[in-house]
Parts: sequence; C-alpha cells; structure tokens
Amino acid sequence: MLHDALIAPATLELCGPQAILESVGKRGGSESAQQDAITARMIELARAGRVVVRLKGGDPFVFGRGGEELRDLLAAGVDVVVVPGVTSALAAGESIGVPVTLRGIASSVAITTAQGTGSMSRLRDLAAATDTLVVMMARTNLTEVTAAIASVVGRERPAALVSKATWTDQRSVEGPIGDIARIADSAHIDPPATLIVGDVVTALTVSGLQLAAL
Amino acid sequence: MLHDALIAPATLELCGPQAILESVGKRGGSESAQQDAITARMIELARAGRVVVRLKGGDPFVFGRGGEELRDLLAAGVDVVVVPGVTSALAAGESIGVPVTLRGIASSVAITTAQGTGSMSRLRDLAAATDTLVVMMARTNLTEVTAAIASVVGRERPAALVSKATWTDQRSVEGPIGDIARIADSAHIDPPATLIVGDVVTALTVSGLQLAAL
Repeated sequence: MLHDALIAPATLELCGPQAILESVGKRGGSESAQQDAITARMIELARAGRVVVRLKGGDPFVFGRGGEELRDLLAAGVDVVVVPGVTSALAAGESIGVPVTLRGIASSVAITTAQGTGSMSRLRDLAAATDTLVVMMARTNLTEVTAAIASVVGRERPAALVSKATWTDQRSVEGPIGDIARIADSAHIDPPATLIVGDVVTALTVSGLQLAAL
Repeated sequence: MLHDALIAPATLELCGPQAILESVGKRGGSESAQQDAITARMIELARAGRVVVRLKGGDPFVFGRGGEELRDLLAAGVDVVVVPGVTSALAAGESIGVPVTLRGIASSVAITTAQGTGSMSRLRDLAAATDTLVVMMARTNLTEVTAAIASVVGRERPAALVSKATWTDQRSVEGPIGDIARIADSAHIDPPATLIVGDVVTALTVSGLQLAAL
C-alpha cells in the first residue's frame, strides 16, 4: 500500500495485518522527482509479484495525477484496476449542503484549478459558460482568482470556500464572490481549500437548520 | 432504506438483518409525482423516529435530485447527513481508462446533461470553454448533442460513449465526436450512457494493453 501523507489514520487501520504500508506523500524534493519515484516504486513492486494499492485522497483522476500514473504503469506492462474515489471538487460543496447542480438553478458544473499558465483566462471562460464553477486549490491566490471570476459574473454571485473538506478540522465561509477573499482572510481559512461559485451556494439555505456533514 | 430501482442486489445485501428495504425507483407515474412521494415517505419515516437511508446510484448531488430532496427534508425539520457518492460523470471515463483531467492535456472538466430547454446552447458554450466535456444521459438525443459539440470543437475531437458504467453489462465505444453517434448506433449502445469529449480520451492509449475496470 503506497499512500499519500494526508490519508486519515482511521482509513489506514482498515488494512489487514498482511498489508505493508509505505507513505509516499510529497514532502520535500521537487514534485516531479517525487512523482517519478512513486511510479518507479509501484512498477518495481508489481514486477516483484506484489499486489500494489496506490491510495490517494479524493479522486486521483480529477487533478490528482492518477492519469499520469496510469499511463506510466500501462507503458510498463503493469495490469491496473482503477477504483474511482469521491473528488473533493464535489464533496466540498456537499459537506456544507451545497449541491453543484439543482433543478431550475444549475444545469452545469465546471471543475478546474487556479494553477498553471493561463489559469485566469481559463477561469473567466469557464465562469461565463457554466452555472456552477468549482476551483480546487484556490486558497493561495484567492484574491486573484475571485477577481477574475467576478469580472465575468459580477461581484454579487454567491460563493463558498471550504477548507479541508470532510476532515474533522474542516472550515468554511460564504459570501459574494467579490468579498469572499476578504472574508476568508478575516476568518484565517487555511489551504487546501475549494472554491464554489454559483447560485447553488445560497439556493438551499433554510433558516435555523444545520446540515450534519459526514 | 429507500433505494432506487437500479441499485445492484449485491449492494443491498450489505444491509443488516434489521434493515427494512423499500424500492422507490421511478417506474411509471409522472417523475415529479414520484419524487414528491419519495420525499413525503422519507419525512413520514423520519418523523416516526426511524433512521432513514436514501440510497441512490452515483452522486445524488450531480444531476440526481439530491439537492431537491435535501431542501425539502430541511424545510420539514429533518436532520440530514449527506454522504457523497462517486458520480458516473467521472467514473464512466475512469472505467475505460480515461481521466477527465491530465497534466498538459486537460486542465478543466465540465459536466452537464443534454436535457431541458437551452441544453444545446449550453453544450456549445461549455464545449468552447472547457478542455474535457462530460454529458450525462446523452444517448437519447446523441446525434443532436454531438452535432452541437462538433460545431464548436470540430468533428475530429476524440470522444467516448460509456453505457451502464461500472455495471457488469457496461459497454463503450470511442471515435471522433463527428462520428460517435453513428458508431454508437452501429454497436447498438443502449441508454443510459455518458459522453466524454476531449483529448483525454486518446491521451493514455497504450497499444496491446487492457485496463481492468472495477
């Protein structure tokens, strides 16, 4: 079992006594070098006849480098079984009672990140085309991200920022997209965090009731 | 346990002996009347002190009416715990080795349906803005759907259509978006089916290897 650094201990305890656990979380070293080492280790163990489990948080095929690992494993001749997970792009909203689609309110959802070249231009194009926009890893440059989105949808579009979705120390804030960065700063919301923008954020609000999130 | 008609028997068998199962699949009757009856039944059971599980296939908050059920339950004063699922919008691609995002190939994914007024206009806008486009429930009007998308991205953009994703009778076809409807007709691909459009469809192809899907 090769697992990320952020897998909850309770999850790892589900492994049977015969399982050998190796943490391969990306801490220190360049990210690409670490990724190459993880893939090489999987191939090494598979060729030694081991059944290798690569456990990631979220869905590894939604901005989780699962596709890259799959490509390299297939190229090495390793048989692969893919088990999809629940992506934080969708679970973040659900954990605060916000569905990404809702009949009469939102008929489309787009998921992206705020990383890489051209990301602000991509955010503007997506904001114009979709009802609900989810931006993963949005905390670091939140002011720039929200300004780009607000320039297309206006500063009043409802938004929510969810930090550490589904963890015991999950926190979230809500507010208009034009204000959410300031609100997040005031509340000291830490990364990693997922931004959700759209009318779905306020569509279900029922006064005086709380949503219990698992 | 109020479950949809399409939940696999093996899943239902995971229930303990104390669980009472009721199938509330939408078969016959108008869809909205059925939905109202399901919600009313949940509220009735909750008010009687029962712990009610509403089990759906996929993720009920991605075009699954989960948001509507949540809204009505909260308005009725019922405490709700939301457990996100794996949406077929993402699992369909993964089941055939297609990640919806891939570094250097796709930095965004949009999910929508081909249902409702304005859906063709919405499809064109999303196709222009996103790298990967996923259209759920795309089989019924696939020719119209693919024509709308091809009018924006061109007829050669790679596409895949996955029917009954992750079921034992799952089937899929691949081809250029301009040809995929004809290919699906020739292969007698049945609904429900999910359409995936983007360069990710062909990005991982490795000759002579198969991907085992769970």
